[in-house]
Parts: sequence; structure tokens; C-alpha cells
Amino acid sequence: MPDPAAFRRLAIVGLGLIGSSIARGARARGLAGAIVAIDRDEAVLERVRALGLADEATADLAAGVAGADLVILCVPVGAIGVVAAAMAPHLAPGAIVSDVGSVKAAVVAAALPHLPTHVAFVPAHPVAGTEHSGPDAGFAALFHGRWCILTPPEGAPPEAVARVGRFWEGLGSVVETMSPAHHDLVLAITSHVPHLIAYNIVGTAADLETVTQSEVIKFSAGGFRDFTRIAASDPTMWRDIFLTNKDAVLEMLGRFNEDLALLARAIRWDDGEALHALFTRTRTIRRGIVAMGQETAEPDFGRRGKEAGAGPG
Amino acid sequence: MPDPAAFRRLAIVGLGLIGSSIARGARARGLAGAIVAIDRDEAVLERVRALGLADEATADLAAGVAGADLVILCVPVGAIGVVAAAMAPHLAPGAIVSDVGSVKAAVVAAALPHLPTHVAFVPAHPVAGTEHSGPDAGFAALFHGRWCILTPPEGAPPEAVARVGRFWEGLGSVVETMSPAHHDLVLAITSHVPHLIAYNIVGTAADLETVTQSEVIKFSAGGFRDFTRIAASDPTMWRDIFLTNKDAVLEMLGRFNEDLALLARAIRWDDGEALHALFTRTRTIRRGIVAMGQETAEPDFGRRGKEAGAGPG
Repeated sequence: MPDPAAFRRLAIVGLGLIGSSIARGARARGLAGAIVAIDRDEAVLERVRALGLADEATADLAAGVAGADLVILCVPVGAIGVVAAAMAPHLAPGAIVSDVGSVKAAVVAAALPHLPTHVAFVPAHPVAGTEHSGPDAGFAALFHGRWCILTPPEGAPPEAVARVGRFWEGLGSVVETMSPAHHDLVLAITSHVPHLIAYNIVGTAADLETVTQSEVIKFSAGGFRDFTRIAASDPTMWRDIFLTNKDAVLEMLGRFNEDLALLARAIRWDDGEALHALFTRTRTIRRGIVAMGQETAEPDFGRRGKEAGAGPG
Repeated sequence: MPDPAAFRRLAIVGLGLIGSSIARGARARGLAGAIVAIDRDEAVLERVRALGLADEATADLAAGVAGADLVILCVPVGAIGVVAAAMAPHLAPGAIVSDVGSVKAAVVAAALPHLPTHVAFVPAHPVAGTEHSGPDAGFAALFHGRWCILTPPEGAPPEAVARVGRFWEGLGSVVETMSPAHHDLVLAITSHVPHLIAYNIVGTAADLETVTQSEVIKFSAGGFRDFTRIAASDPTMWRDIFLTNKDAVLEMLGRFNEDLALLARAIRWDDGEALHALFTRTRTIRRGIVAMGQETAEPDFGRRGKEAGAGPG
């Protein structure tokens, strides 16, 4: 029996890792009467049909969103504006439009001007993912215990925000609300710059002529292997994140570089005390994260993901 | 029944995570007739006795190493020289001395001049660890499926190198041999610089005034949480690594910084193609690591550690 709070008709645009996980989770938890999968890639639609992820699967954006009371855009951030403009004339009055982008101010700026006033726009960012992409990579438990951050623009109807929040809680997320700009600043340092650095060091290592690539791969333990996993995330998605959250990323990267220059200087000048002091401080921060239940003390990162979800994170 | 290749008397100096894991593994696999635990910290010796990790537990270095046919120094790299000098007069003729330091050229330079010619020095680096320290944190399976790199100095007796190799294979490691200098270069990029960067970004994040520390902790997902784990490693051990592998670390850090400057420029000038090209390349490298069996495709990193050990790394 469907949840009384369920949407009648859920349209998901873009059936990649996130979109297909939403489809699976929404069906498993009875969060939607009917699910419509919309993707411009016929090969993706084939997989959606084969996996039985939706009640309808179509490449026709206009027909797909017609009559939907919730439309979730699961496309790269750089494509949000084009998709919003294309679907706008076909949205039902009273419909809620949402998205799953990792950057929010740019999403609001790109989508909001195109949307008719008779729909509500409630952007969302489920802070969850794996290094894999595509409809086969998704799974219903992806959002269990993970944060989902809502960033409603000024004037968004509170009831629409609350319904989207309940939808994500139904998928297992812990929901938080903040402004788009604040979201982008927090995520720049907790996610975007770490990804940039991981991409960078994997590239640097691969370039080394004195250390052959096969040796880097062979001994990819002790830190580097973690970086390669992060650096395997979807290239298009991350290109768009860096280009659309440029100011916050460059600001945080500047701070990172200043601090790194100090560390390099401490190494060059044998300042063991400065190194030890920083390393002690960061260890304390990690213990705070473990203590807050954001992470287990065991070194598996709660990444058993597919079976279970631990604390948010 | 002990392995016929076992050592009669194994002395372990320093019963932290690594030393106590060696003691547990050596006993479990019958790799030593008797195990002597040597530590200058009486509280550590108390734990060693309570946990039953060794046949003898003493703070007396001279008495502890006397009669041992294998002595493994499990102390921070910066203390190797002092410990080697102090124990040298008490080493039995024919004894093998080894260590577990993450830096090898500096270890050879610090220890070798102190050691008598009637012992063999076979430095080793088990590429394994967790974010935890101390005798309670150790476990016998820590080295299962992990690399152990031997870096014998010129002139080391091949039979001694082979015996140390068999000892580590007995602990479950995959053994590799290379020169100390080459080891330091490979590890600088695969382990030391990644750790330095992780320490740095956790510090940068904690410094932010506009993003409170509690929010960084709260949303510590998507990359950052991995960094905090790395940045929780033992402060003294890592201080010593950076100070003793200074040249290789600064060289690799220089390359990293050059590449990062290019990335920052690509973001500032909206060069999406350059970003996409790098991100695609690093994803391929990651897939090479998974394909080589160094890592599972599942996002748990083989970190179920305590129960099982997957591929090396």
C-alpha cells in the first residue's frame, strides 16, 4: 500500500547512479504511485526496462513530465538549465521540481528563471555516491543514513519543501536545510577540494617517469589507493561541479595552498614540532568525527554500503 | 610444532601497532621459539603482559636482545639510530637485525654505522597499518596480503635477506626487494605526499571561520572523511617520515603543486575540456588498480582487515 504522503507520479530525468537509485528506493518504499524514467540515451532506457526500474521509460521529456507531481532532475549540473527550459511548458500546475546536483547556487540560477510560477522548485543534494556510474550501478540503500541537503530558494512554498524532505526521509536520508550559497561553501571544503586534490595526485603519480606507473599501481597502498577511488568518480559530473562552484572552490583551494606551503617549509627546515602539532590536531578532529557517530572506529568507512548504512556521512 | 625455518629467539623493540601485530602473528604461525618484548614504556609492558603477547617483557634493551637471532626495531624512524647504538654491543654473532620503518635510506644511514660486522642488517617496510596505535591495536592478520618491501644495503648476506623474507611471508605478506633510495621515491608519491595532503586539508578545514568545525564534521562525507582517517595516523611516526624522507617528499610535492596550479587555472578560465581529460585519465588508472587485483570493485577497500586480507596493498 502506498504511503499516503506518496507522490502520484514521479518523473526522474537521467537514470544514472543517483536517478536509478531513487527509482529503486521509491518503489521499494512505496513513495510514488507511478515512476516515469526519462533519459535521452536509448541504451540507458533499454537497461531501465530490462531492470524493471520504472513503470514507463521514455526519451520524450515533454510526455514524461506531463502529469507528474514530482520531477527530479538527475542530470549533470551543467545540463540543468537546458533541461529545465525544455520541460517547463509541459509541467503540471502544482508540480514540485527538484534535482540532485552537488552544487546549488548555480543550479538555482540556471533552472529557476525557466520554471513557471505554478510549480515549486526545491533543490536537493543527497550526499551519497560511489565510484560507479549508470543505471546498473544504483541500489535502493544508497541513501540510507546519508545526508540530503535541501536548499530552497527564497519564496519556495514551505509545504513543498516539507514534502520533498519527507520523500528523502522515505529513501532513508537524514534531511537538512540551508541556503544554496552556504551549501556550496561547506561542500567546497568537505567534498569538492578533496576530490580535486585526489584527481591531481593520481595524475601527478601517473606522470612520473622515474617511478613507472605499474609500480605506482603495485604499491598503491597507504593513502594513495583511497585517492584513486575518489579520482574515479564521474568525469562529467565533476567537471561541472568545479566550473559551477568556481568561486568557493578557488577560495578554499587558496587556503589549502597557503597551509601546504607552510608544511613544506616545516619539512625543509626540519621543524618537527610544527609537524607534530598539526598531526596531533588532525587526529583529534578525526576522533571527534568517530565520536559523533559519523563514522565507525573500524577502518571500513561504513562502505559496506550495499548491505547496511551506518551513521550519516 | 614450530616451523623449521623459525627463529629461536625473536626480540621485538617497541610494542606499538606494528610490533604487537608481529608478536601476535609470529606466535600464531610458529615463526619464533621464544618472543621477547622490549619497550621503554612500563605501561606498554604492562599491556603486553596482560595480553600475553610475549614470553618475556622487559625495559632492558641489552638483556632483551642478548641471544636473539632476530631483532626487529619497531620504533619511530627518528629513534632508530639511538636504539641501534644502544643495543649494538649486546647483539649475538650471526644475529639478524631488521626494522619496520616507512623510510629506508635514512634508516640504513642511522643504524648501519652502529651495528657490529658480525650481524646482518635487513631493513623491511611492511606496507600496512591502521589509524590506531599501541599494543592493544595490533592484530595477527594486519599483514595478510600486504606488501613487505625489503631494502638490504649493499653487501647484506643473501641468506639473511631470504630468511627475513620467509619470516614476512609467514606473517602473510607478499615480499618485494628494492634499493632503499628507490623505495623512498616510490613511497613518497604513493604514501607520504598523500598523507601530507590529508593532514593539510583537515587542518585547513578546521581553521575555517565561515564554516564552523561542527559543520565540517557533520558533513564530512564525499572525500573529506577518507582524508580525516588518513590524517589520524600516528603523529610521531609521520613527523619522522617527513623529516627523514625530506628530499623525495619535497620533490614529489613540487610536482603535485605544479599540476595543481594548472588545475586551478583550468577552473578559473572555464577550461572544462582539460578537467574532463584529467578526470577520465585518473578513472582509467583506478580501473587498472582494480583489474590488477590490488583492490576490489566494492567500495570497502579491503578494510574489513581484522577478519580477512584481500590483495596486496
